[in-house]
Formats: sequence, structure tokens, C-alpha cells
Amino acid sequence: MQSDRRWLAAAARLGSRGRPQSRPNPAVGAIVVKDGKVVGRGWTQPGGRPHGEAMALAQAGEHARGATVYVSLEPCAHKSDRGPACSAILVQSGAARVVYAIRDPDHRTSGAGAQTLIDAGIRTEHIQCNEADHSLAGYICKAARGRPHVTLKLAMSLDGFIARTDGESQWITGEIARQHVHSRRAMADAILVGGGTWRKDRPRLDVRLNGLEDRSPQRVVLTRGVPIDGVKIINEPSQIASLDEVQYVYLEGGGQAAASFMREGLVDRIEIYRAPILLGAGIPALGDFGLDALVDAHGQWKMTERRMLGSDTYEAYERANETPHAGE
Amino acid sequence: MQSDRRWLAAAARLGSRGRPQSRPNPAVGAIVVKDGKVVGRGWTQPGGRPHGEAMALAQAGEHARGATVYVSLEPCAHKSDRGPACSAILVQSGAARVVYAIRDPDHRTSGAGAQTLIDAGIRTEHIQCNEADHSLAGYICKAARGRPHVTLKLAMSLDGFIARTDGESQWITGEIARQHVHSRRAMADAILVGGGTWRKDRPRLDVRLNGLEDRSPQRVVLTRGVPIDGVKIINEPSQIASLDEVQYVYLEGGGQAAASFMREGLVDRIEIYRAPILLGAGIPALGDFGLDALVDAHGQWKMTERRMLGSDTYEAYERANETPHAGE
Repeated sequence: MQSDRRWLAAAARLGSRGRPQSRPNPAVGAIVVKDGKVVGRGWTQPGGRPHGEAMALAQAGEHARGATVYVSLEPCAHKSDRGPACSAILVQSGAARVVYAIRDPDHRTSGAGAQTLIDAGIRTEHIQCNEADHSLAGYICKAARGRPHVTLKLAMSLDGFIARTDGESQWITGEIARQHVHSRRAMADAILVGGGTWRKDRPRLDVRLNGLEDRSPQRVVLTRGVPIDGVKIINEPSQIASLDEVQYVYLEGGGQAAASFMREGLVDRIEIYRAPILLGAGIPALGDFGLDALVDAHGQWKMTERRMLGSDTYEAYERANETPHAGE
Repeated sequence: MQSDRRWLAAAARLGSRGRPQSRPNPAVGAIVVKDGKVVGRGWTQPGGRPHGEAMALAQAGEHARGATVYVSLEPCAHKSDRGPACSAILVQSGAARVVYAIRDPDHRTSGAGAQTLIDAGIRTEHIQCNEADHSLAGYICKAARGRPHVTLKLAMSLDGFIARTDGESQWITGEIARQHVHSRRAMADAILVGGGTWRKDRPRLDVRLNGLEDRSPQRVVLTRGVPIDGVKIINEPSQIASLDEVQYVYLEGGGQAAASFMREGLVDRIEIYRAPILLGAGIPALGDFGLDALVDAHGQWKMTERRMLGSDTYEAYERANETPHAGE
């Protein structure tokens, strides 16, 4: 059981490699294990096909016979003109056992994928796995809530300012933290800023990492103002639901746009880059989002990641007491 | 050499046990090591005597003969009517070697303590040790700068607020963090708040930990207002220099008092308690202290400690590129 969880977590991390190019499909990872050895690994390919299981089983070949297949999402049950269902491929492979982490919220597969395996005599288990929840957060959020997963990025001083009062903000954080931001952009389907930030900073909002320049996500601006060339406009935070093929939104500010999303409960994850500097005055990271009382602020967030990036601290917070499992 | 540093660090940590009751003397720690085994340990006793070396050597007894004595501060050279000089005790003990971390800035001892040992044929070494610098920061700061060491405490939300706009601040951080604050108070000689905080909150500023109630430090208020019963008043941050027998000041706010100290460069260490909550609006941790440009904020602070206290984060920052060694 403990080792099952570890293999599932490894499969989930592999799956994240497919993000975000796997869209519109979820970025699923699979590992084929036989006699304690990995004989196949795979993740969803750009454009969504082949799926992770298909890749892993193709790599395993005959070694899949009698093996256990770990997969972050329930194997699909629906045939497509782009390829056979993964549950059918698994049956053909001769695998003895399949362990998956998340039941697929897609009504064409939900439960049916697992049933196909069971009917074919494959031992099939469903085991919860935090890494899988994390790696498929956008897909699950979209299925459960009808809108993409939103990560709010904040880069601030120790005392919570994202810029000086005169707007000077280059730079709060260091080079390593800024590169990390670009790597996070490359994992998103859309980058969103508020109209004020757009007009003031004209941010490029692209990925400036060697080899990943073509991973720059769609740019979205929250504004009631006039249309902007090359940029998608939304007037309300809730309109992220209408963004085509977007599972992951990366919200880069400013404080008022962030507050709008907070006010509507549309922030799922917060990534904070904190520089070891004090400003004493400046522009706050987050505008007033209408908190009623201090007690309401507690218990909302838990830290799920933390590391140093040079002398800056990176921390990720996710909603506490909440696992956005669709269809379970 | 590496093991010398480790023993010195251990001696320094022992020394911290003497803080702050050792005042007016520094809280020095000593370890007597023979054949790789600890045969004596000691630290400065309440009121300043006996010194750490005297305690450790008394414990070691005859085992001190031929041993190495590690001590965080250069052994004293001056006789006192309260006891003999530690350098003389060390000579009598038969110790073969003495390793100390910091040259004593006290002119009665500085260099003379070590010379007494050398003249007696004891191998005597001076090795820098971060833990010793830390454990004697107040004593060294007072000698080098003529004023106590100042720790600024901040308890804030992720977005840098110490209270809501209406002043509600009970509670930002959790029970464990608040107990930690009390343990930090118990290490200080004086607790300082600004006049505004005093008038608004009437804080007790005492130590509420079982068994440590009598460790509540002197209370000091920074104000130009009228005298307050039971409280020492200073009008300017620089007047901390005049506080009797105070090596360690614990500055608890509010933001304006903190800014006054920051403006004058009188903050040596910052201890931040950060709760995993967002407020969106409120009273900032730190008032405007007149930073000229963003670039001036960088390179001032480095993180030296970090731990979780329940769901809150504790981080300590100290001045970067600075070791306040007096007399060196």
C-alpha cells in the first residue's frame, strides 16, 4: 500500500511533464512496474494523444504481461478516432493489476474505465494520492466547478509590498525567482492581469526561458475597458469559465485584480515569492477583498510547498480542507 | 578544526542558557573535553557569577588536567571581589588547551586573558564561531556600539498586516507562535513598544509561561507623552543606550515605533511570525522609514533561522555582511 502510493505519486509527477501541451486532455502519467522494476513510463503527449498509459505500455511491450500499471487518472473507456481506449489497451497488454488515483469526471469514462478492467479480470484499485490531485488540479477543477484552476502569484517584500509607492517594482525578487516565475508561466494555459497593471506596465507576460519561448500562454486582461490587440478580455473574474481549453490560469496581479478573484473565491493556489527586503511603504500585494472578521481569514490556506530561490523564499499555499474531486 | 568549531558552537549554545539572568555579565558557555568526552559544562550564573568556565571546571575537577576547554568568550583576566579570574582558574586546572570564540571587548581582559593562558604554557586558540557571535550579540553590540542589541518582532498575515484596519489583531498568529513570543521575551532584558501601541492596547508585555513568570523584562515605552507608572520612558530610539544593564531589547511595535528604529539603523535582528492568512487590508507591519530607492532595500538582511510553529512560520533575519565584533 505504501509502495503503491509512491508509484502513484511518481506516475503523477511524470504526468505533470505533459502540462500544459496535453490540452484539451488532462496531463496523465503512467508507470508499468514488474517485479519491483520500472518497465515502462509515459505521459500524455502534446495535443492530448497518445495518452500516458498508451505511451507506457508501448515502452513496456511484452514486459507488461503480469505487471502492475500505476496511472494518475482512471484509464479512459471511450474509443476515439484518434486512438483506442486505454482500458482496452490495458486489457490487451496482459497487465495483471491497475492502480489509479482519481476517478475520471468525464462521463464517458467515469467508472466505466475501471469496470472494463475488472470485467477482463484485471485487479483494479483506486487509491487517493495527493500528487495526483495536484498534477490534475486544472482538469478536476474544470470538471467539478466548470472553470479553470487559478494560481495567484505574488512577488513581495517581507512587509508585503509588491512595489514602492511610486510604482518602482524592478526588482523586488532576484533573478532566480524571476526565472522560476517564467517556468510557472510555461505550465499555464493562460496568464491574467488586471487592466490597471496592463496599462501601467505593458507586461510582456511571456516565457523568457531558453527553449521554452513557444510555451508562452494565452494572455488575458481583466478590464471593462477597450479591446486590446492580441489579448483576450474578460470583464469579470467568473468569465474565466468561458476561456477555451484553459485548465490553468496564472494570475499575476495587480492587487485589485487579485482582490476581485479573492472576493469571488476564485483563487485555488497562491504562490508567494518573498524577498528578504523591507520597504516600509508601498503598493500592497492584495487589494481589500472584503474580509468581514479576522476569524474568517483563518483555516483557509495551508502551505504545500516551500523552497529557497537564491535569497528569496518561494511558498505555495492551497485551499485547506478541500480536495476538488469531481464525481466522487 | 571542524570538531573544534562544533565544540565551540555547543559551548555557545550552553552559554545562551544563562541569558538574560547573567546580566550585567555576558552569558558565556564552557565545555571541558578530554579524550573526546565531555567532563564538564557550565554557563554564567544569575547575577553574572560564577562564570561559565568556573562552573565547567568545578564540574570537571581532576578530569580537567590535560583537557581542552572550549569557551564562547575569552576567559577573563581581572580579579574581582566576587571571585578569581577565569584565566587563573584555567591555569590552576591543569588544562592543556583553551579554544575561545570571541576576544573580550572588556579592556580589563581583552587580549590579557589569552596572554595569561599562553604565559602559563596552555595552548590557546581563537576560532571564529557564528553560534558564539549569536549567543553574545547583546554583549558585543553594547561594547562595539554603545547600545543594546535590538530584535524587532513582527506578527503578520501573508500579505504583511499586523491587524485589520479597525485594529482587530487578536489573533493573527496561533497559540504556539504566541508562546514562542513569550519565550523570546524571557530572553530579553527590556521589552519596548511605541506610545500609540501602549495607549491603544495597554499590553501586559510580560512572560506568561509556567515557571518563567519572574522572567518578565523591564518594560520601556517610546513616547514623547507623559510618564507611565511602572514603565521606563524613552523619547528617541537612540536612548536605548542609556537603559541600565540592558543588552537585549525586544521591540514589539507598533509600526511607527518599528519604523523609528529602522530609520536610525537600530534594528539588528527581525523575527517574523507569519500566519497562513490573507487580510487584503489592514495596518502594515512597519511604518514608512524613508527608504530612498528599491535598490537600497537589497542586501541588508539575511535569513538565519526558520521553523514552523504550528501552521505559522517563524523566520529570523539578521543584518547581512556584518559581524559586530568589538575590539577586533
